[in-house]
Amino acid sequence: MSEWFESLDGIFAQLWTGLEQGVADRNAPARHPTIATVSVDGWPETRMVVLRAATRETGGLEVHTDITSAKVASLRAQPRAELHVWDSEKRLQTRARCTVTMTSGVAAAEIWKNVPDPGRQSYGITPPPGHPIATALAYEKRPLLDSFAVLTCQIDRIDAVYLGAAHRRAVFVRKDCWAGQWCAP
Amino acid sequence: MSEWFESLDGIFAQLWTGLEQGVADRNAPARHPTIATVSVDGWPETRMVVLRAATRETGGLEVHTDITSAKVASLRAQPRAELHVWDSEKRLQTRARCTVTMTSGVAAAEIWKNVPDPGRQSYGITPPPGHPIATALAYEKRPLLDSFAVLTCQIDRIDAVYLGAAHRRAVFVRKDCWAGQWCAP
Repeated sequence: MSEWFESLDGIFAQLWTGLEQGVADRNAPARHPTIATVSVDGWPETRMVVLRAATRETGGLEVHTDITSAKVASLRAQPRAELHVWDSEKRLQTRARCTVTMTSGVAAAEIWKNVPDPGRQSYGITPPPGHPIATALAYEKRPLLDSFAVLTCQIDRIDAVYLGAAHRRAVFVRKDCWAGQWCAP
Repeated sequence: MSEWFESLDGIFAQLWTGLEQGVADRNAPARHPTIATVSVDGWPETRMVVLRAATRETGGLEVHTDITSAKVASLRAQPRAELHVWDSEKRLQTRARCTVTMTSGVAAAEIWKNVPDPGRQSYGITPPPGHPIATALAYEKRPLLDSFAVLTCQIDRIDAVYLGAAHRRAVFVRKDCWAGQWCAP
């Protein structure tokens, strides 16, 4: 019997299972990917987010954020992101290059309805995230649909690296129908 | 007695301790930061690396890589990076925006001398990292000083977020002598 990391199909299935587990299980490695963007002035940026949806059929990922956050400004200027997950148990790194569309306000109301109250606390910070404040806790949280933004990340390319005894790297591209290609690690 | 996350100095000290632990201890969270760069064609990229040095006095971090890797091409075009560490135990996210200089070949020989043989296996892959290969293991590792590149990352700015019961965010900037500024999280 072959191991999952020995075939392109096996790696592709494993990385999607991992992403799906991230959505379902708050302790799974893919619960908290990092998402890299390019700032308005051209700097690479990366920070942790919560993975809210992962849809294998469409190759889509979903992340929620405050519309006044720096990452929204970055994505408005350049709607490109890379999500990164490291699963230390499986020894699998997943990098998903995405084109991002944003939905907010009334258009995001259906998704907002399903955000539980503790989660809503993350959307609607005054002053906006990253603004200087006089003391550590000199900010207010006022959960607000108007502050809520959904980042719909359409994956264009996945780069997966298995860091087992022998390293294996595979790249899967949407326009090739995710066929997969082995690459030097 | 106050907790480390209650003062700017406390957060700054804690994040540097974390980075130093990453260099010293292979199981520490900062052992494997992700490093974000901007690709030659403008895409954000991020992948895991090994933290090889962290020098509080100079505000410097060091990472090693294969000179033929995509990240070297990205950094040649745009010598900017952001390193990301999430310490789940301390609930502390550290983002370090850096200007990167690269050293390779003979100029890196002193550092190469101290890279143990298993580590050297990562530098000198044929074909170069990311190149298509026919089967998963159709590559060779030939440790080679000529393939070894040192990324010296001078930190310009650190964005630290403590995700405890109340979130606290602090930004430290080199040109302000790392004085620190509370920001909305």
